[in-house]
Amino acid sequence: MESDHVRVLFSPSGRRGAVAIGTSLLDASDQLGVEIESLCGGRGACGHCQVEIIEGEFPKERIKSCSSHLKQRDLVEETTLPLKEGRLLACQTTLSGDVVINVPRESQVHPPHVCKPARIHKTTLNSKIKLYYIDSALFDSKSELGEAEHLCQLLKTHWRLESVRFDLDLIQLLPGILESGNLSITLAVYDESEVIAAYSGQQESCYGAAVDIGSTTLAIQLCQLNSGDIVAEAGSINPQVQYGEDVMSRVSYLMMHKQSLHKLTSLVRSEIQSLIDQVCERAGIDPSLLLELTFVGNPIMHHLFLGITPLSLGQAPFRLIASDSMVLKCKDLNLKCHPATRGYLLPCIAGHVGSDAAAMVLAEAPWESEEITLLVDVGTNAEIVLGNQSRLFATSSPTGPAFEGAQIEFGQRAAPGAIERVRIDPKTLEPSVKIIGSQSWTSDAHPQSDLDLPEVTGICGSGIIEVIGELYLADVIGADGRFNEQSRQRSSRIILDGKTYRYLLYKNDSITLTISQTDIRAIQLAKAALYAGIRLLMESYGCDRVDRIRLAGAFGGQIDVKYAMILGMIPDCPLDQVSAAGNAAGTGARVALLDSHSRNKIEQVVEQITKIETAIAEGFQELFVDAMAIPHSTDPFVNLNQVVALPDRRDKPVSRRRRRG
Amino acid sequence: MESDHVRVLFSPSGRRGAVAIGTSLLDASDQLGVEIESLCGGRGACGHCQVEIIEGEFPKERIKSCSSHLKQRDLVEETTLPLKEGRLLACQTTLSGDVVINVPRESQVHPPHVCKPARIHKTTLNSKIKLYYIDSALFDSKSELGEAEHLCQLLKTHWRLESVRFDLDLIQLLPGILESGNLSITLAVYDESEVIAAYSGQQESCYGAAVDIGSTTLAIQLCQLNSGDIVAEAGSINPQVQYGEDVMSRVSYLMMHKQSLHKLTSLVRSEIQSLIDQVCERAGIDPSLLLELTFVGNPIMHHLFLGITPLSLGQAPFRLIASDSMVLKCKDLNLKCHPATRGYLLPCIAGHVGSDAAAMVLAEAPWESEEITLLVDVGTNAEIVLGNQSRLFATSSPTGPAFEGAQIEFGQRAAPGAIERVRIDPKTLEPSVKIIGSQSWTSDAHPQSDLDLPEVTGICGSGIIEVIGELYLADVIGADGRFNEQSRQRSSRIILDGKTYRYLLYKNDSITLTISQTDIRAIQLAKAALYAGIRLLMESYGCDRVDRIRLAGAFGGQIDVKYAMILGMIPDCPLDQVSAAGNAAGTGARVALLDSHSRNKIEQVVEQITKIETAIAEGFQELFVDAMAIPHSTDPFVNLNQVVALPDRRDKPVSRRRRRG
Ligand code: FES
Ligand code: FES
Repeated sequence: MESDHVRVLFSPSGRRGAVAIGTSLLDASDQLGVEIESLCGGRGACGHCQVEIIEGEFPKERIKSCSSHLKQRDLVEETTLPLKEGRLLACQTTLSGDVVINVPRESQVHPPHVCKPARIHKTTLNSKIKLYYIDSALFDSKSELGEAEHLCQLLKTHWRLESVRFDLDLIQLLPGILESGNLSITLAVYDESEVIAAYSGQQESCYGAAVDIGSTTLAIQLCQLNSGDIVAEAGSINPQVQYGEDVMSRVSYLMMHKQSLHKLTSLVRSEIQSLIDQVCERAGIDPSLLLELTFVGNPIMHHLFLGITPLSLGQAPFRLIASDSMVLKCKDLNLKCHPATRGYLLPCIAGHVGSDAAAMVLAEAPWESEEITLLVDVGTNAEIVLGNQSRLFATSSPTGPAFEGAQIEFGQRAAPGAIERVRIDPKTLEPSVKIIGSQSWTSDAHPQSDLDLPEVTGICGSGIIEVIGELYLADVIGADGRFNEQSRQRSSRIILDGKTYRYLLYKNDSITLTISQTDIRAIQLAKAALYAGIRLLMESYGCDRVDRIRLAGAFGGQIDVKYAMILGMIPDCPLDQVSAAGNAAGTGARVALLDSHSRNKIEQVVEQITKIETAIAEGFQELFVDAMAIPHSTDPFVNLNQVVALPDRRDKPVSRRRRRG
Repeated sequence: MESDHVRVLFSPSGRRGAVAIGTSLLDASDQLGVEIESLCGGRGACGHCQVEIIEGEFPKERIKSCSSHLKQRDLVEETTLPLKEGRLLACQTTLSGDVVINVPRESQVHPPHVCKPARIHKTTLNSKIKLYYIDSALFDSKSELGEAEHLCQLLKTHWRLESVRFDLDLIQLLPGILESGNLSITLAVYDESEVIAAYSGQQESCYGAAVDIGSTTLAIQLCQLNSGDIVAEAGSINPQVQYGEDVMSRVSYLMMHKQSLHKLTSLVRSEIQSLIDQVCERAGIDPSLLLELTFVGNPIMHHLFLGITPLSLGQAPFRLIASDSMVLKCKDLNLKCHPATRGYLLPCIAGHVGSDAAAMVLAEAPWESEEITLLVDVGTNAEIVLGNQSRLFATSSPTGPAFEGAQIEFGQRAAPGAIERVRIDPKTLEPSVKIIGSQSWTSDAHPQSDLDLPEVTGICGSGIIEVIGELYLADVIGADGRFNEQSRQRSSRIILDGKTYRYLLYKNDSITLTISQTDIRAIQLAKAALYAGIRLLMESYGCDRVDRIRLAGAFGGQIDVKYAMILGMIPDCPLDQVSAAGNAAGTGARVALLDSHSRNKIEQVVEQITKIETAIAEGFQELFVDAMAIPHSTDPFVNLNQVVALPDRRDKPVSRRRRRG
């Protein structure tokens, strides 16, 4: 990097890059494709461009972010919007060193509207919460019992609810509720044992929400508890990304700043609160009708959300502090709905296999079938579950963030401007690409005149997988992932780079996007880890093939399963048996919300799952080494070969692995 | 009252009186026997005399307290102690109108140190909370379970606790506790089902406290849960007295100021918090070792403490909002001990028979015996329980505050300076009295030279009962409570007062203390209400006599049972079977704290008690009228007659009552 440039990283978009010293933050955001509100055109007058600096060391980005790296211009006029504490006007602040900048929601032009699709799923309805309407004709105002006890007695007489009690918070409100309903009242009873809410007169519906606490995105589904209908959904970026894009960097951050646990916890909780408020507003319901929430997340998010230190999850033996399911009051999590709103957290499975994986298991119900199902949620840590009605196995594998575009020179998150699909002509080696935000294929050789074509900013995970798969199919790289020396003669897109090569994927005035040997190596390491984890479970189960593969999560929905198999991320399987499971974690959270029996079921299932820790499993290293090859050094991939003509695999190394299990 | 005087009432002492306009608050306090700190002698220099005005209407005192009735002098020097917000320097503030003044604890010379005696009582030890020590040798740091679940598993393996869960608050602390104890840990398990606290290494004891929430006084007993020992006690004035000395005036206050419920609730809670802190400090234990509290109180205090409006208890049918026992977390009551400290409230019995009465029942266990026991807690509302192992009855009777010295011209609370005992020579009608704070009998005719003799300020409840009893025995007043006209000739102490008389009990330079016909009438009304309530229960039970009478509460400990019987407060009974029960409510709270089985027992007993509401009971009015006579118009008082020679009862009116039941 030129020395008259400084590094800037914008959160939560994750956009980063170098800009000239003296650039204003507003201009820097513009150059890096981050949209910040600026109604006054950067004169310091409107006050809409407020941002904040995140100080600290960010080793992965090689940024030491410090407020002394920012210079503030003297303001000429007073700004219309008052400046919040700790905020700066991006248009009036110039750069003299590296910084990490957070763009708060209200300063974003298009606040990210992440909304994982909620898969339709047949769910038995059996909510923990049921409503009972007690007409004033039933209410005996002369009963010598306390009002609360009299209502409990009516529940017993008329609905056979034997031992119901009132929540204290509710008792405080009871006289007013009875009065304004003229002694007609609707009681919300939790688990046939506790009256947790009451409404004047007759109330037909109450609501619950399923919350998926992802490392990167948070998603919520608001459901009517009596019909099971999803009445609103919302999503947002997990604001913790400013402390590390993946959970492991957040753990590292906490190692250095132990007192910050509380901050990270309240960040995610208040973002969830704002999602709750959003869905209630969209559905037009009063938050006091929201009576239960279910939560899922990976172990580190689970702990961070609960305010439990995740430090023990940062190193072997990756020990959870608490793994069982939990029932609690949402107000104890500082979430405001009804004062008595209950929360249910699904159980975690193991040190790196969270309640999101448990929810995926609940959504997919592999225990119901004879077929061997493989469930994979690809993330920084892939969560893997394999088995059928006879037994289930789970593990996680440290794939790292490469699939999410990190560690890849031009990698970026899946966002407008990212290349997501790649085809390479096997003869000419000319590429065509598809860019997120555009409908059609394009290439730098034949740029489209389309005005709607977003500017290319990088390549996302699915694009990387396809480009490497295509390079392999075109014989540019071998099964070992190395560029074939002779391919340089085939096209000028193969560029010498020191002792190795790069492939030029896209070039225009503003970007020269290449795929380097290092990028390919990073993907190989990631996919080898994933494959080895899967293989470990197959050996534990004692099977050579799986009947069905379900890929969960956003990434599972983006990738083309054929390329995932060409690359050897997943084992061989009939392609029509491989499919995306959508937001299986969110679906599972919803199942747990709507069907209380499913909670007992998943708790039992999780207890019986055999947990395998890749870090200490015997033979994992060998499985890993064998899986470095594309698609694999020894496994045959029979089904795949029927669909795709894989290059001759003569040059495959001899397996150093003895078969086990 | 002269028009150049103003009325002042000091809280929490309850002292009141008239002082000249222009008097400083410090001088007024002096004149009325209220001690306020004044290190600088009233120069405005020390800042120790800080007080605050309580504004509002106090109809009972005929005071309209308003800050415009206070004039502040200009301060010459700056005070050493900073003036807290809303406070005034008593020495620098003069009176121009009626006011009610609160003297905060730190400005009181002798902060009241009310400590109801804790009766020794054999209690089965069976605490809800038990400690389990897990040595690091037991802790398997390689277990694949979460740390919390591993500890639960150890509780199961070693102590057969089948399904224990961790409290969320505790899980957050668990990693630190395990670390600082090097994996040795002591777990506190509640009800064999939830780990609510944990301590590094080995912890031998944990604690609980029984809290008696009286209308006037709050009392706490700190107990070691494993031994049952009381390790510290404390008491204080209920700060709610500033909003009405008796609970009914607090209800009236709330009727006028509905928004003040929260204020009254937090007042009593924060005073209880300070008692908790006091006992912990005295016993030298960390408040985090205090793991359970039990609470008792009359229905209105029960509701006010829980933050439930008591308005429905202010009028017939005196309906409770919630009467059952309750289990809750003390943090939900804003009480700070350990974050997971549990609370248990004993059940209330009926609209005016609170959990203090239930605790009295628990302490006295009338259900265990064949003897018919009468339990009475005399207060503004007497709580009365009668019965034996076959059945129990409970009621309350509106005795009013006369027994506490209110409504009596020279009445006051039992405090130093109050006359508590009275003897009248039946011939000369000369009295001798005993004053609280002094050891010996004295009289105005023969004043003692004793320097320790406190200045007489008034007469308290037990003194009033004795003076009326003695006047009756000396034939000064008749069975109907009226002064005999001829007694005026017997002594100059009988003074004409309009159409009736007064008895001069005590006179010196500063006080002329007389007992008026109105005072006697007030006591007759109070005692008739009490007796009629008792009689109502006897008729309900179907008995003509009781075997045993236990008088609970502070007043029960102060009064001479013989005079209580002469006056006809309580029914005839062998005098040696009548005794004070001490703080039976506090004892019951302690029994509930130490023996968790007793909770089920008292809950069952309370459910089976027959509740009787005097306000609507048929025949109560007749019982009441008959009980106006001293000791009674018809009941024979056989046992009493054997001990005391009651005056000839020829002049008794003919009973208008037909016997029932
Ligand atoms: S853009 Fe308007 S103040 Fe910065
Ligand atoms: S007595 Fe010292 S300031 Fe009032």
